[in-house]
Amino acid sequence: MRCILAGKAFLKIALDLQSPNWELTLQSHINHFSFLLSINVHMSINEKYQHICQTAKQAALLQSAADALEWDERTGMPPAAGEYRAEQVACLRGMAHQKRTETRYCEYLEQLHDELEAGSARGAQLQNVSIRKMHRDLQRDKKLSTDLVEHLAALTVRGQQQWDAARNKNQYNDFKPTLNEMINCKREVGNILSDGTNKSAYESLIDEYEPDATTGQIDQLFTELRTPLVQLIQQIHDSKQQPQKDIFHRPLPIHSQRQLSREVAQAIGFSFDRGRLDETSHPFCTTLGPNDCRILTRYDSNHLGTGLFGTMHEAGHGMYEQGLDPESFGLPLGSYASLGIHESQSRMWENQVGRSRPFWHWIAARLKTLFPSDYASVSVDALYFAANEIKPSLIRVEADEATYNLHIIIRYDLEKQLIEGSLGVNELQEAWNERYEQDLGVIVEQDSDGVLQDVHWSAGLFGYFPTYTIGNLIAAQLFAKAEQSIDQLDQKISEGQFHELLDWTRDKVHRHGRSMTSEEIVHQATNQTLSPDYLIDYLRKKLEPLYRL
Amino acid sequence: MRCILAGKAFLKIALDLQSPNWELTLQSHINHFSFLLSINVHMSINEKYQHICQTAKQAALLQSAADALEWDERTGMPPAAGEYRAEQVACLRGMAHQKRTETRYCEYLEQLHDELEAGSARGAQLQNVSIRKMHRDLQRDKKLSTDLVEHLAALTVRGQQQWDAARNKNQYNDFKPTLNEMINCKREVGNILSDGTNKSAYESLIDEYEPDATTGQIDQLFTELRTPLVQLIQQIHDSKQQPQKDIFHRPLPIHSQRQLSREVAQAIGFSFDRGRLDETSHPFCTTLGPNDCRILTRYDSNHLGTGLFGTMHEAGHGMYEQGLDPESFGLPLGSYASLGIHESQSRMWENQVGRSRPFWHWIAARLKTLFPSDYASVSVDALYFAANEIKPSLIRVEADEATYNLHIIIRYDLEKQLIEGSLGVNELQEAWNERYEQDLGVIVEQDSDGVLQDVHWSAGLFGYFPTYTIGNLIAAQLFAKAEQSIDQLDQKISEGQFHELLDWTRDKVHRHGRSMTSEEIVHQATNQTLSPDYLIDYLRKKLEPLYRL
Repeated sequence: MRCILAGKAFLKIALDLQSPNWELTLQSHINHFSFLLSINVHMSINEKYQHICQTAKQAALLQSAADALEWDERTGMPPAAGEYRAEQVACLRGMAHQKRTETRYCEYLEQLHDELEAGSARGAQLQNVSIRKMHRDLQRDKKLSTDLVEHLAALTVRGQQQWDAARNKNQYNDFKPTLNEMINCKREVGNILSDGTNKSAYESLIDEYEPDATTGQIDQLFTELRTPLVQLIQQIHDSKQQPQKDIFHRPLPIHSQRQLSREVAQAIGFSFDRGRLDETSHPFCTTLGPNDCRILTRYDSNHLGTGLFGTMHEAGHGMYEQGLDPESFGLPLGSYASLGIHESQSRMWENQVGRSRPFWHWIAARLKTLFPSDYASVSVDALYFAANEIKPSLIRVEADEATYNLHIIIRYDLEKQLIEGSLGVNELQEAWNERYEQDLGVIVEQDSDGVLQDVHWSAGLFGYFPTYTIGNLIAAQLFAKAEQSIDQLDQKISEGQFHELLDWTRDKVHRHGRSMTSEEIVHQATNQTLSPDYLIDYLRKKLEPLYRL
Repeated sequence: MRCILAGKAFLKIALDLQSPNWELTLQSHINHFSFLLSINVHMSINEKYQHICQTAKQAALLQSAADALEWDERTGMPPAAGEYRAEQVACLRGMAHQKRTETRYCEYLEQLHDELEAGSARGAQLQNVSIRKMHRDLQRDKKLSTDLVEHLAALTVRGQQQWDAARNKNQYNDFKPTLNEMINCKREVGNILSDGTNKSAYESLIDEYEPDATTGQIDQLFTELRTPLVQLIQQIHDSKQQPQKDIFHRPLPIHSQRQLSREVAQAIGFSFDRGRLDETSHPFCTTLGPNDCRILTRYDSNHLGTGLFGTMHEAGHGMYEQGLDPESFGLPLGSYASLGIHESQSRMWENQVGRSRPFWHWIAARLKTLFPSDYASVSVDALYFAANEIKPSLIRVEADEATYNLHIIIRYDLEKQLIEGSLGVNELQEAWNERYEQDLGVIVEQDSDGVLQDVHWSAGLFGYFPTYTIGNLIAAQLFAKAEQSIDQLDQKISEGQFHELLDWTRDKVHRHGRSMTSEEIVHQATNQTLSPDYLIDYLRKKLEPLYRL
């Protein structure tokens, strides 16, 4: 049948080639026939599915190579090598995008998805889930033109450079034109993506990080969280009982801090056989292959918490990545469910574990050995209290686990308005400063401590901030359930036994990859939808006795 | 014209499609017309040249990304990540090969080369040189089928694994079958490459590392070198004057050795702005971009020379790479001329500089500060003599600069016979051991110290060994000229002033990239063809007074 069609078509082409645009005509015929030839109509569902997975894995191979180059860029690449590195990364990401939108991949995926929708598919359940997720991603990928993707990529690089320069000069005004361009560009992206859906532009941007989250849900969660949180923070502020300020601020040799961090990461379950720990100026976690997870932290020679909590946070991210199915690397089943879920895994180890009394019981002994002159005579109680200092401040990344969420709510409110267009870049600085005074009671005195402190907006990451607090909420809700499910968890943590908690998260969260949504994972693990009550409860139970409220 | 041809062809295709193999027929027509369409007959020479360079640079982008992944593999990649890393690297190298052999690239390059050969080209001289070099590479690339390339790539990975296992078990017999397969495969490659040339199969293999070198030239150089070298080594052996053995074998903290190596690399001119120094088990130098050269060394806590000379050697390679034109990265003008030239740059800094009296005058002060308890009371003369210990030994990589060349000559003689087929793997072990006894007077007691000591043959690197001694010869000849050309070079070295020597090599060697051959570079710099006399002279002048011969 195809053969006859092709034969007739070629007769027609022979005539078409009389036209003045014969080169374009010929090219379009070639494209059409190449495609026609490429489709094997006799392929089974399974063969098509295999082809799709193969293509997705090839795209992941290129993406992960680019990720490796970016890891290297942030861990010690020679200063002069940046420009060429950007070219290498752009080339690899471009080729990965081509893979993810190539004709045969799109065609097979649409066919399999159509069959699923028509109810005629006979694939295994996980295969069907996988098809739906890949189809969902493809709809996003296809909506954006290559021109727009390239424009955005260039703007992202330029935006970060402009932001960095403006922040160093403490001049928000210098950053305004670029920020405005970025907002317009991301609004356009949001509008394009929201087309044919019932999402707003901003929701479509959130969707990339937290699939299907709506501003309605987030507004409700954040409103319910905000009032009791502000009240608790105020009570703590008014309390006469306060931690001893200097305990965490003693000069400690970096090489010993490094040893401590490595020991803790290993103890809680990060696999050094399948990963490594390095140092960088802005800590992060990246995965370069199914057995290659890299976590990065930083140390402050005058602050114990920076390196220790930073490492536990990144190790939490890393253990989630290490808990995904390595065989499905590059496929939905081998990917994380959402950034909120990802953040819940880092926050749980950093806060619910790392700032708990049993943990400080365990780690105190090690501190006394590593830093005898500083910690030999400090009690576990004093250390534990110091790890839980709550104090409103200007900088998000240095904030404690209670006030942190107020930083996020401010950013969420402002960026939503920026994308909606109800707030302009000319009013942003004032709006930021007002909110900090009003919500946290602190005065912004320079832009680098205010509206210029975060890289996110300069990199086009609108819709990313709310996932931090969503992660905090999920962490508290999951941990409350883990405490019920694991016999004597506190006792085990105080003995440095963390594997049952890790196994619980492996079972409830990690192994599902993206086969369940964020909501489904939370519900399946805790029998409840996401609620801010758990975080509030957790903070009250811990902080009320400490601060004698 | 093309339009009419295409129209007629399509009429014919419409008939062809009646055939049972219509799918294959259609595909071949599509390929042909895609190609036809792709050639713009109206493009100027310059436009074609730009297209070729663009393509070569894209291939280099992919190759250098693969090189970065391999650097990472050898500097600290998690143990379990190896398999996926191999997939990533293979994918990138495969895509680079595709770029280097793509239809339009081949077509334009052939056209430009034809015009050059016909004497009708009007391009700049460097452009013409570049076209000839790329055309030369293309002829090699095109001769080998993808199947053979892939077979060889797989055999290389397997070969090294088998070699590693056999060496650990000290069992040459275990390695024999794989070695035999590798020899057969490389002989086939050599035969294919030599087709249509006047080279032997072995010469065609050498050609990849040392373009246009013939066994006739190498035989002559090595024969002329061998007799006086053996005589000198014998005289030294018989001398009662010997260096104090323990001076280089004192336990020295690695972190201080690391500091020394970094200081020395920086002092001699390696740019840390455009490169970095790391550690690995088998030192090497690799270039990941025009401003990103990585050198790697290793330290022995009981041997000063391992780290120091290793670093100077790799820094020499690195400074050559840093002296190539960054704008031409990925093109002949931005590439090294040959492995012999490359090795001359590493050897010159390691030996002619690093084992000279003025250098030890300079470095002694630093040693006394870094390792006071070990070197405070050791004289410069004693250090200098210890740096020049000459003693026949079993292991090439640990050999001194005189006996080193005997190790190379043995390997050259044997591998030539292996590829020619006059020596089989069953006779190799005995032949190796005989030659070591005869040439160096040492008895091989285990295969890991004998025929299994080098990775090269397991990785298919036949024809690579002679470039080491060619490099030694070039280093001596270039340095003799540099000493004549640079006023008071010894004095400058003894004061730690190395930049005039580096500038001299930049001018005479580095900046030319591959625009001149190895022979042309040597002749242009020294007004003479390559001769073994300089190395013999250099060794005699240094060693005769030291050993009082």
